[in-house]
Amino acid sequence: MSNSGKKLWKEALNVIPGGNGLLSKRPDRYGKDIWPVYFSKAKGCQIWDLDDNVYIDMAQNGIGTAILGYADDDVNQSVIKAINQGVNTSLNAPEEVELAQKLLQLNPTMGGVKFARGGGEAMSLAVRIARAHTKLDKVAFSGYHGWADWYLATNLSSKSNLDEHLLPGLEPLGVPYELSGTAFPFKYNDINDFKKLLEQHDDIGVIVLEGARYDLPSADFLKAIDIESKRKDIVVIVDEITSGLRISESGVYMLFDFDPDIAVYGKALGNGFAISAVVGKKEVMGSAQDTFISSTMWTERVGFVAGLATLNKLTKCNVSEHLVKIGTHIGDGWSELAKKHSLDVFITEYKPLVSFKLNYGKDNNAIETLFIQEMLKKGYLASTSVYVTYAHTIEIANKYLEGVDEVFKILSDAIKKDKVSDLLETEVRTDMFKRLN
Amino acid sequence: MSNSGKKLWKEALNVIPGGNGLLSKRPDRYGKDIWPVYFSKAKGCQIWDLDDNVYIDMAQNGIGTAILGYADDDVNQSVIKAINQGVNTSLNAPEEVELAQKLLQLNPTMGGVKFARGGGEAMSLAVRIARAHTKLDKVAFSGYHGWADWYLATNLSSKSNLDEHLLPGLEPLGVPYELSGTAFPFKYNDINDFKKLLEQHDDIGVIVLEGARYDLPSADFLKAIDIESKRKDIVVIVDEITSGLRISESGVYMLFDFDPDIAVYGKALGNGFAISAVVGKKEVMGSAQDTFISSTMWTERVGFVAGLATLNKLTKCNVSEHLVKIGTHIGDGWSELAKKHSLDVFITEYKPLVSFKLNYGKDNNAIETLFIQEMLKKGYLASTSVYVTYAHTIEIANKYLEGVDEVFKILSDAIKKDKVSDLLETEVRTDMFKRLN
Repeated sequence: MSNSGKKLWKEALNVIPGGNGLLSKRPDRYGKDIWPVYFSKAKGCQIWDLDDNVYIDMAQNGIGTAILGYADDDVNQSVIKAINQGVNTSLNAPEEVELAQKLLQLNPTMGGVKFARGGGEAMSLAVRIARAHTKLDKVAFSGYHGWADWYLATNLSSKSNLDEHLLPGLEPLGVPYELSGTAFPFKYNDINDFKKLLEQHDDIGVIVLEGARYDLPSADFLKAIDIESKRKDIVVIVDEITSGLRISESGVYMLFDFDPDIAVYGKALGNGFAISAVVGKKEVMGSAQDTFISSTMWTERVGFVAGLATLNKLTKCNVSEHLVKIGTHIGDGWSELAKKHSLDVFITEYKPLVSFKLNYGKDNNAIETLFIQEMLKKGYLASTSVYVTYAHTIEIANKYLEGVDEVFKILSDAIKKDKVSDLLETEVRTDMFKRLN
Repeated sequence: MSNSGKKLWKEALNVIPGGNGLLSKRPDRYGKDIWPVYFSKAKGCQIWDLDDNVYIDMAQNGIGTAILGYADDDVNQSVIKAINQGVNTSLNAPEEVELAQKLLQLNPTMGGVKFARGGGEAMSLAVRIARAHTKLDKVAFSGYHGWADWYLATNLSSKSNLDEHLLPGLEPLGVPYELSGTAFPFKYNDINDFKKLLEQHDDIGVIVLEGARYDLPSADFLKAIDIESKRKDIVVIVDEITSGLRISESGVYMLFDFDPDIAVYGKALGNGFAISAVVGKKEVMGSAQDTFISSTMWTERVGFVAGLATLNKLTKCNVSEHLVKIGTHIGDGWSELAKKHSLDVFITEYKPLVSFKLNYGKDNNAIETLFIQEMLKKGYLASTSVYVTYAHTIEIANKYLEGVDEVFKILSDAIKKDKVSDLLETEVRTDMFKRLN
């Protein structure tokens, strides 16, 4: 294991509250005492820690950013060329326009684009534009949408409000109390819950939902949202930050007869480089001009260039088909091996981010930690989800599944003999999110 | 002039509301029909438009981001090396810790750092942490602090609230009405206005001010803020996004006996690459752990690496001294030439962002546009402010001042003969900001 990583994490905790900027990259999410924590370099789906141990990433792959694999040559070459020519000047980067045009081509019902850098930031932008358009503040939402005030406001009235919405115990301290009663959750794929919420509040101006969660949305659910929103002139925002670009050339929403007003992209859009985009109907996006929205770093060139190179390669190489194929293969493999070893697991439906869910109640986290620990010994960064990348192959997946075979046996034996805790060489992973994001 | 730039801007307006992500990069801010709008490449303080015309940037220099000059070799080499080794993986980038440690070394009263990408985003983070710490929502502020809800909220009750605060007419549409009465402006360097505000509201939890505006803060003003904030346990945030790193190795606040709780850096921190930082007292920053703050793009490596390379070079080359020297030289030059040509101008005090202010009332914008137009003909991107960079030399400044000499004469003659409008080959620049930012 990486002692240098552990040592540096200790230093990090001393200067950065929480140790870093993203919960999903904190070692306690995986195995506090065994996780390598830091990387020195990465290529494809390989990643080297600070002590030069090398791993195959069968887990987060940049928390979903590295859709083409780490350090993709095509994206990197475009970015490096741009860097040599200057990235942030007094004039504009022409690639901002080109990327907007490309996104509109991939989202043909849309007519306007605004860029940001982070996903949470892009969602704030989208909600601002939607509120400016409807002149109504209240938001009905489903799922996870980041750290911003508009979203965390839902937990102001009751901390348990989000219990059904992926982030139990989410702490809204520092979100103005004045915002309580401005954001209301509804259950994903639950038409009745959605309709009930809209009946309770006749002044909802914005509906926000994820493109997909573990499961794909049901056509009926999306149809209900479509009908109600159009009937009441509500702006619908589909958050495709996690789900987008993986199962189609644009959002998951495009696979359905679903007509949102705004789609938000992030994560995979720049294959790791910081870029996010709010893509919406012409008329709705026009409301961006009625409110003050402006930030220097939104006009920096690297993000646009990386976005263009990534989108072009996604299309050219038919990457989504590859992701679904590999994700399905991994899911089927897990399923088969779980049966073989009598493990009670459930495989999720959204294949580019394929997940298995254990069914052992409060023991799940300990069993998962044992899985992570034993896969790490075999040279894998593993977890209960895989963000599949274009760098993953059937061969890599098969080799990984050979490892899973052995480790599922260890898990199964440990569960039968009630020895899971005894086998753990680290603290049990924390469960801040029900979903890794 | 760049016809290609004008053509592309038309296309941009068709797909991006407002044409881009930053008001300060919109051509109507300078000269709608003459400004080159887009760049193909840039190096040092030179910039090429899409038709390969080359200009010396004696204006915005990346809207303050390119503190070392465009495409600085040292920063770029560090960034390119990092890109080849992967920028966003499942593990953390060690440079996040290194940059935090470096910032704490430069801000010795501080004890914790959180990173974001944009300036507005970093300010939202700072205000969230401050509110979480004091458990009070109300903010007293002075100056410009970006596009976020917490700030624009001040304009909800009255659109003229910010008239004295740099952004008259700032449009808060889409900011929840519930936030009205949560943000209150006070005048910069006006102790009485500040004290009056605090007397009016006994539940202010956060004070936000700029490190510098055109003028440096007065020691008495800062002392009053120090005393009142400590007496009332208010968290003080100094926004050094624009002012920081230019006149000292850290913030302007460090030049004074001033003790803010949080300093926020952006713009110049990564010499153009997207990175911003919230640097604060250990105890205050600890409150970041009591509220949900997390974003994938905050952990991307390019920003940290660019930040480290930039800070190291700023120190090593004593850049702030250079910026003050060149800024003073330009300011003195303007002053002298204005006298020579009987132009009524005032030179501002903060030399790394040196500005001249015309004193012709409603004619200022037209005269400024004529200045921009005539300097453009001489191969300069010019405006009423210069963000000085390390790439600017006395020789470049002198050559520029030779041009200013001729153009000030044109301005002076035109004013005397009331011919300014006749000489304009473009629409008069817009005045969205009283300050360029």
